[in-house]
Parts: sequence; C-alpha cells; structure tokens
Amino acid sequence: MTYCLAIALQEGLVFASDSRIRSEDGQIITTGKMHCFGRDGERQLVLLTAGNLATTQAVVAQLRRDLEGSALNLDTLDSVGGAADYLGGVFLETRTHYGDTDTSTCFILGGQIGSDKPEVMLVYPQGNHITTSNETPYLQIGESKYGKPVLDRFLDPATGLDQAARCAMISMDSTMRSNSLVGPPVELLLYERDSLCPGRRLKLSEDSDYLREIRRAWEANLQAAFETLAPIPALGMQSADQD
Amino acid sequence: MTYCLAIALQEGLVFASDSRIRSEDGQIITTGKMHCFGRDGERQLVLLTAGNLATTQAVVAQLRRDLEGSALNLDTLDSVGGAADYLGGVFLETRTHYGDTDTSTCFILGGQIGSDKPEVMLVYPQGNHITTSNETPYLQIGESKYGKPVLDRFLDPATGLDQAARCAMISMDSTMRSNSLVGPPVELLLYERDSLCPGRRLKLSEDSDYLREIRRAWEANLQAAFETLAPIPALGMQSADQD
Repeated sequence: MTYCLAIALQEGLVFASDSRIRSEDGQIITTGKMHCFGRDGERQLVLLTAGNLATTQAVVAQLRRDLEGSALNLDTLDSVGGAADYLGGVFLETRTHYGDTDTSTCFILGGQIGSDKPEVMLVYPQGNHITTSNETPYLQIGESKYGKPVLDRFLDPATGLDQAARCAMISMDSTMRSNSLVGPPVELLLYERDSLCPGRRLKLSEDSDYLREIRRAWEANLQAAFETLAPIPALGMQSADQD
Repeated sequence: MTYCLAIALQEGLVFASDSRIRSEDGQIITTGKMHCFGRDGERQLVLLTAGNLATTQAVVAQLRRDLEGSALNLDTLDSVGGAADYLGGVFLETRTHYGDTDTSTCFILGGQIGSDKPEVMLVYPQGNHITTSNETPYLQIGESKYGKPVLDRFLDPATGLDQAARCAMISMDSTMRSNSLVGPPVELLLYERDSLCPGRRLKLSEDSDYLREIRRAWEANLQAAFETLAPIPALGMQSADQD
C-alpha cells in the first residue's frame, strides 16, 4: 500500500510520502516514492508514486532517460500541466507495453516552472489529470481516506507552509496507525514559492525524534481536547424517537 | 452511503448510525439505520444496517415477523452470538431470494441477553460474523475509513460509556465532513451494562445544538492542538537523502 499527498498553498508546496510496499507474494519492501527533478533557478518538480512498483519504476526510469535522450522532457516542458500531460503519455505507454491493468497506479506531479505559479497535478492511469482547487488545496494517492479528515478541517490555500507540513505529518501518522501497510520512512518536502530551489527535504525514519514527538504531542493534545468536549446530552434534551 | 459503528466497553455498549442513503438513480433518502429489539429486564439488542436498503429492510421485516410467528427469534435466542447466527441465516435467505449480489450490505448486532456480558457482532453477506477484541473494541460498517483514526487513538475496553459516545460522535462527524453521502440525523445509543433496559437513545438532526457544539469545540480544540505542535525540523536535523 502507499500514502502520498501534496498540498498547494500561496506560500508554496508541501509533499509527503510513505515508503512501504507489499509485493504480490506478501513481502514488505521499503522504497522511496518521492522523486525530485529540476534545474536550480529555473524549475523544480516533485513526483510521488502509488500502485504497481514495476510500472512506477519503469515510468520514473523513462522520465530520467528522456532527460538525456529526448527533446520533450521534464527539463524542457514549459508548464506543470504540460509536464503532467507528458507524464500521462509515458504512463499510458508503459501500462500498455507491460499489459498492466492495475487501475490503482497513479502519480502526483507538482512544482514550479519559471514565474508560473506552483501547481500540483494527479495523473490517472488513463493519462489524464486533475489539479487542486481553493476549496480542496490538496491531492492524495493510495490509502487516502484515513488521513483526509484532518486535511479537510485545516487546510486552505492561505495556510502557512510549515503548518501545512505539520498537517501532512498528522495525516500520514493517522494513516500509518490505521493501515500497517503504510509505513516509514516518511519523506517530507517543503517547496517555497519562487525559490526555484530543491526545498527542504526530510526523511523521517520510524525512530526519528520528530515523528515520535509529533505523534506523542498530537495524541496528548487530542486527549486533552477530547476531555473538554461537552457530555452527551441527557435523554429528552434532543428528539429521541423510538423505532 | 452509510456509516455505523458499535463499541464494546466494560461499562456497556455504544451504537451510532447516520441516516443518509443514495438510491440507484441518485436520490437522497433519509432513513434510520438503528433498530432496537428487546424485553425490559431480560434482553436488549440493537441492529445497525448498511448497504442495499431493500435487503436490509426485508431482513428487519423478517426479524419482526419472526417475533410473532417463529419459535426462533430475537426474543428467544439465548446468546448474542446465537442471535448473530440467526440474523446471518435470515440475511443469506433474503439475498438468495432477491438475487442480491451487493457484497457491501452488512449488519452490526449488539446487546446483552440475561447475565451474559454485552457483545457486538458484525454479520457479513455470507452469514458469518466477527466480534470485537480488547485491542479493537469497535466494529464499523459502511464508509469506515475516515472515522477510524480517532477510534484507534482513543478507545479501549476501559473507556467510559459517555467518553466513548463522544469519540463515536467525532468519528461520525469526521466521516460526514469527508463524505457528503453520510449525513444526519445521527442516532446514538448508550447501553449500560446489566441494565437490560433500552438505554439512552438520541437522534441528532443537522441543526441539533449538540452536534453543532461538538463540531465547533472539536475543531477549535484541534486548531489549538495543532498550533502547539513542534515546527518541522530544519534541514540537517534529520537524515535528508536526495533521490
């Protein structure tokens, strides 16, 4: 399984990914799902992957080969949307070539090219893509449901980069707790708008102080939050129809 | 869609259900999914339903007919497990009769019979069932993922009845926020162990003061919890391999 997400903010972009994959015979593989591309001062792109590992690795390998051998590549395309179209094409070709019918495989591609605003795209197996909105400034791939409520409660495009990254960490932690097939190391990347530099990239292992501390603090805070909630109203304070 | 859950605690049982269903042509129907059975001082059973409405209504109707016309019914069976077996049989017969192949339909049946400990069972379309454990003292049916992290973080069998009910409300609220096909009224039932009486049953409509207040308080508390989290460590404090 996999959980990856990306958030588009006024201040920049946040990317997060887990590193756990279960192979078809049940083996647990640990492998990074965050891949960075770019030229400092010109463009930065981050790719997150979910689904069939053979397909995603073949796609990433093709993107890297194209950097050397094709005029059309992640260093030459002039928009993030154009890069997502190109990725969608490579993805579709790879699936067709290997007869991959797994529809859970998909990618998130985000970044900034030149003076365009930073953007994030989710690329589907059909080769098409969607982007974020003001109302839903994030995209998720893989095991997305467990970690969605905290994103829905806290994120909007005006959220600060660091705060959004903490929100992403909570979302990741909730997912790892509820599905053991999503697991550390957690990779986190904070890209500051208009920097056109690789950004702050962290790799948090299972025993990372920060991962443990954020989990401990969040649980303690939630516990305290929980205890201040109003008690369930006594019968009669609300309508209480009997079936 | 549907979200229902039940929690088994040392102090008793908590049941919660939403009331929204989307019919095949897209119409939104509001209908209760919590059904109570029992004889005061002798037994109490609560049934929660998810999936194909025609099937769940047919099953509930059969259970009610059996109360009058069959020796084997929810008033005569001598254990919650036996009642779950009986329900599984009625469920399987109903599915077969109508050719229902929808595998998302299922039931939660919980309660207490005589001096047995209170129990909760999840009954599958195959007619078999599972129960809770010390480690996972709850069962969910329908749209279960959004509301799972808060249950995993807070519940154990020693959790108090009222606190577990608040946890169920937060779990329900998170689910309603993230999937608009899960919606109010929310029904909540708190059954106190050994009372053998119907328990506190509340029906909280969309504009219920309690539902609004618990949502507001939880969001405010989470926001405060969020702001006290340690900032993301600066690059270099953790390993930061480049791909």
